[in-house]
Amino acid sequence: MIKIVLLGAGNVATHLYKGFKKANTVNVVQWYNRNLKSIETYKNEVKITDNVNNLIEADVYIIAVNDDAIPELSSTLPFENRLVVHTSGSARLYDIDQKLYRGVFYPLQTFSKAVDLDFTTVPICIETLRKKDFKLLETLGQSLGCVTYKVNPKQRPALHLAAVFVNNFTNQIYRIAHEITEKQGAEFDILKPLITETARKVQEVSPYIAQTGPAKRNDKKTIKRHLKLLDNPDQEAIYKLMTESIKKTHGH
Amino acid sequence: MIKIVLLGAGNVATHLYKGFKKANTVNVVQWYNRNLKSIETYKNEVKITDNVNNLIEADVYIIAVNDDAIPELSSTLPFENRLVVHTSGSARLYDIDQKLYRGVFYPLQTFSKAVDLDFTTVPICIETLRKKDFKLLETLGQSLGCVTYKVNPKQRPALHLAAVFVNNFTNQIYRIAHEITEKQGAEFDILKPLITETARKVQEVSPYIAQTGPAKRNDKKTIKRHLKLLDNPDQEAIYKLMTESIKKTHGH
Repeated sequence: MIKIVLLGAGNVATHLYKGFKKANTVNVVQWYNRNLKSIETYKNEVKITDNVNNLIEADVYIIAVNDDAIPELSSTLPFENRLVVHTSGSARLYDIDQKLYRGVFYPLQTFSKAVDLDFTTVPICIETLRKKDFKLLETLGQSLGCVTYKVNPKQRPALHLAAVFVNNFTNQIYRIAHEITEKQGAEFDILKPLITETARKVQEVSPYIAQTGPAKRNDKKTIKRHLKLLDNPDQEAIYKLMTESIKKTHGH
Repeated sequence: MIKIVLLGAGNVATHLYKGFKKANTVNVVQWYNRNLKSIETYKNEVKITDNVNNLIEADVYIIAVNDDAIPELSSTLPFENRLVVHTSGSARLYDIDQKLYRGVFYPLQTFSKAVDLDFTTVPICIETLRKKDFKLLETLGQSLGCVTYKVNPKQRPALHLAAVFVNNFTNQIYRIAHEITEKQGAEFDILKPLITETARKVQEVSPYIAQTGPAKRNDKKTIKRHLKLLDNPDQEAIYKLMTESIKKTHGH
């Protein structure tokens, strides 16, 4: 049984709490938040506290707070030589105070507050200094049903950056498509199967292989017609830049 | 039984042929291609020809050829006052010769040659001049298991343009993410569940609602750190432009 203390009450902390509750090999022995109100709902199932000096012993302390708050929170912990990890994609491992055994347990997925998370779709990127700590975090991830990956200090920020591309930027591309269809009173719904298929395709083949369309073919006529349709300069700039990017990738 | 003559032998034509073969209420009575070789494999199951003067009578003639070839092919058809449709997202309905009853039967989906298509995931955008023709094409789409949509001459090009965004541009975003992870020797596989979840989310909520991340929060520190990680100027330009676009959409 791995004993865990959870620190923080945001989206990630809450989803982790719920996930660990269901796991057989993990015991959340305490939940800390500087504001008790946010975790009061859970006080009948787990010890809660708003005072770091009351933290009890555990195998791992998971800090799931804003990146900026990690250094201070970790430095106020009233113990040393215990495993403390954060869950951030971009904060450094060294943001955790050096009196502790440090690690990162980064779930690379988008979390909605409302929807219960299916942890089998959450890859966990693990970074540690000690092999022993890696093993424990690996077991922890597996207990949630996650696939775990060992990453190094250069890979995690690169993955976080790449995640911004495939999540935030892709979503903004969807948004622009929504604007374009809406402007003509066409249903965005018509695009949804294509969105699904585009994401499905790269599960099997590389994005390079999956590419199609006017930019890849360097079909100047269609590109010109599309640019004529776009009367929003921001959308036009994105169309041009993405088209150039595709042309470059595919050797035009 | 709707009698169909198919013209063309590309991806769309071939997938339509296979789809119609399975449908109970549709009969492909003939398949035309200017080059017989491409459709010779099917000669035991359907009449094939490379001569428009040998075309037999049908309820609808489906032209699935390159956009540029539509006007000429339709003008050489040796009959008039029959329903002839093309399958293009961007060619005009009027590209079909005016001696014919004209229409568009545009499947808005990405087609891979190798993989058999599940037509239930293919929305069909229908444009016609006569109500009667719309009804027939609607029935045709439904016989394949497709959801059909009535579109007007402004909506179809807008949908085609929006499709380039959600398919080609999204795929290029995936490609860049692949480059970023590969550069650090991190596995692109780690991003795949996030790609799936990003596409799934907008099936239920609008892309506007679904947005998260540093650009939406105007988290300058993370944005700056990301820009520092990017040493490829093309990737940097895309990061900046997409970040500005998200900031604008979400009121920063």
